[in-house]
Amino acid sequence: MSSMKHLHGGDVYRYKDCIDFSSNCNPLGPPKGVVRAAAESAARMAAYPDVRCQELREALAEYEGVSQHMLYFGNGAAEVIFSLCLAVNPKKALVPAPTFAEYQQALNSVGCQVSYFYLKEENDFQVDAGFVDAVRREQPQVVFLCNPNNPTGVLTPRDLLAEILAVCEETGSLLVLDECFNDFIEDRGAYTMKEYLEGHPSLFLLKAFTKRYAMAGIRLGYGLSADQKLLERMEQVTQPWNVSTIAQAAGTAALKEEDYVEQGRRLVWEEREYLRQEMESLGYQLYDSRANYLFFYSQIPLWETCRNQGILIRDCSNYPGLGQGYYRVAVRTHEENEKLVQVLKNIKEGENIWQKQS
Amino acid sequence: MSSMKHLHGGDVYRYKDCIDFSSNCNPLGPPKGVVRAAAESAARMAAYPDVRCQELREALAEYEGVSQHMLYFGNGAAEVIFSLCLAVNPKKALVPAPTFAEYQQALNSVGCQVSYFYLKEENDFQVDAGFVDAVRREQPQVVFLCNPNNPTGVLTPRDLLAEILAVCEETGSLLVLDECFNDFIEDRGAYTMKEYLEGHPSLFLLKAFTKRYAMAGIRLGYGLSADQKLLERMEQVTQPWNVSTIAQAAGTAALKEEDYVEQGRRLVWEEREYLRQEMESLGYQLYDSRANYLFFYSQIPLWETCRNQGILIRDCSNYPGLGQGYYRVAVRTHEENEKLVQVLKNIKEGENIWQKQS
Repeated sequence: MSSMKHLHGGDVYRYKDCIDFSSNCNPLGPPKGVVRAAAESAARMAAYPDVRCQELREALAEYEGVSQHMLYFGNGAAEVIFSLCLAVNPKKALVPAPTFAEYQQALNSVGCQVSYFYLKEENDFQVDAGFVDAVRREQPQVVFLCNPNNPTGVLTPRDLLAEILAVCEETGSLLVLDECFNDFIEDRGAYTMKEYLEGHPSLFLLKAFTKRYAMAGIRLGYGLSADQKLLERMEQVTQPWNVSTIAQAAGTAALKEEDYVEQGRRLVWEEREYLRQEMESLGYQLYDSRANYLFFYSQIPLWETCRNQGILIRDCSNYPGLGQGYYRVAVRTHEENEKLVQVLKNIKEGENIWQKQS
Repeated sequence: MSSMKHLHGGDVYRYKDCIDFSSNCNPLGPPKGVVRAAAESAARMAAYPDVRCQELREALAEYEGVSQHMLYFGNGAAEVIFSLCLAVNPKKALVPAPTFAEYQQALNSVGCQVSYFYLKEENDFQVDAGFVDAVRREQPQVVFLCNPNNPTGVLTPRDLLAEILAVCEETGSLLVLDECFNDFIEDRGAYTMKEYLEGHPSLFLLKAFTKRYAMAGIRLGYGLSADQKLLERMEQVTQPWNVSTIAQAAGTAALKEEDYVEQGRRLVWEEREYLRQEMESLGYQLYDSRANYLFFYSQIPLWETCRNQGILIRDCSNYPGLGQGYYRVAVRTHEENEKLVQVLKNIKEGENIWQKQS
């Protein structure tokens, strides 16, 4: 287990009494209506879940403005990634580095060879035109991209995504675009590729309820695609009852919570700038995250010292493409963010004292 | 969708206002303590689920009397089947027919060739010594067996299972034994192969909370095995957060409900015999189910007529190894079972009238 110790964030079970800055959900916590809907649905647990997710499907189709048959539901977005890899069964895939670890994990699960497109620190970890060349050169069956990227929070402009999609269509690659954190960027409509779905079966969008409504414990994610055969194949390689009755009820209730989402977004933007300023003034190297988390570099190790002071952060050193010193912190409520800043200040002071002594 | 219409039982969403005799859970419904634990856990939905399922793992290890590291948790037993197939990635498998459809579905998802061992009607659908020969002859990488079998409810004696396991060890086959319905047979201790787990890494047992505690909507199943490498490989090919916070809380609470389980078992035995007598007296051909469902043959089609009278039964004609006329009904509460009997009587009377008229 030790090498896997902080493979993912959010392990609040091993690190009790810590404020969790290592996973990235809406800082407002789940809406009351969603908690209520989930709790009430527990009484209906005797029946198998609806394999069609019909009520949720209708509500989400309306929310996303797409046809019902373009939706695929999973036990969290993570399951959608695994089902997709199993359905496509690719031999060769292209993935940026660093990015969300589950793409590679899912690709490995079907024995796929993964090529990395290394995002450069000197380029602020931006996806650039070199990625288009990499798709053309590698001709992968599947290309994963995350926008804004995780763990960096860096955005890829839509023009470039459209260019990547066009090349994917040339090379017969499936472009899987993870927009799970799109909800937390300010101009989300200008970055989503949703309007490209119709007529572009090579595009698969990945989204989740997890982050938008802070319901990670419930497990509900989804995919959007115009490729009917792909979605059917995904259903064939996955158990029919993968989305629980609770998740379906919570998800349906969540889609009515637009005010809450908007409130969460505004809180994130304000608090992200607060954290950014404080952390920059403490001398950390911050990158241009537009998501509900900040990605930064620290010359001194932070993870253990933070944890000892009740703050759980994400050590990003185990991401391919990163090394020691990279970290990610979620944007949380102001009170919680102040605690993080205080702990980082304590560490800085300790460091200064140590430097003076040595 | 039409050909898939009754592929699985339990579709209470398409057939509202029907009593569901098509899926097989504890007729008492979920214990109150489990519903409460699930509902209360909804408040903790913001955090990701514990990837280790630690609290549940400790409780289940004690309940099953096995080491914690022998347990593997899934989003329902169905997910465990899929993860197992993905982890083993077999080229050749042996499966009886008829049996639970998900074995074949999961094997197909990894492109495995499936051989059937056809259970014979004239042999009351018993697994017999011919199965041992089939394993020796086919040398499959994976063998699935369900005990008591689904949909027949017929038991395979433990002596024969031990013989099958011994041959699997010779041929290097993994024996996956589904004991999901073991809880509803009267002498469950005499049929489970649990005591064979230690020292027999070729044996994989499959179990679920679904049926025992009537919590199918929550999704919680598990596997038991002494093959550490297999369990680790299963973890690698599955998302880390596959078991929701709700499922973990419900499962942990469920394991305290031994009285409830015993009560459900007794109700099942009593009601199964009531249903058996009534149905036999109506002239149906019943097979020797020892589970919480009855499997039978009817010369006249029943599914639609039952549904029109508010009773959802399982049409088994789409199982490989079966044809038109085979059905399965769950054993439910006495009041509900009376309704089923009444509907079957109505059908019989209609049939008699029709025969007299023609």
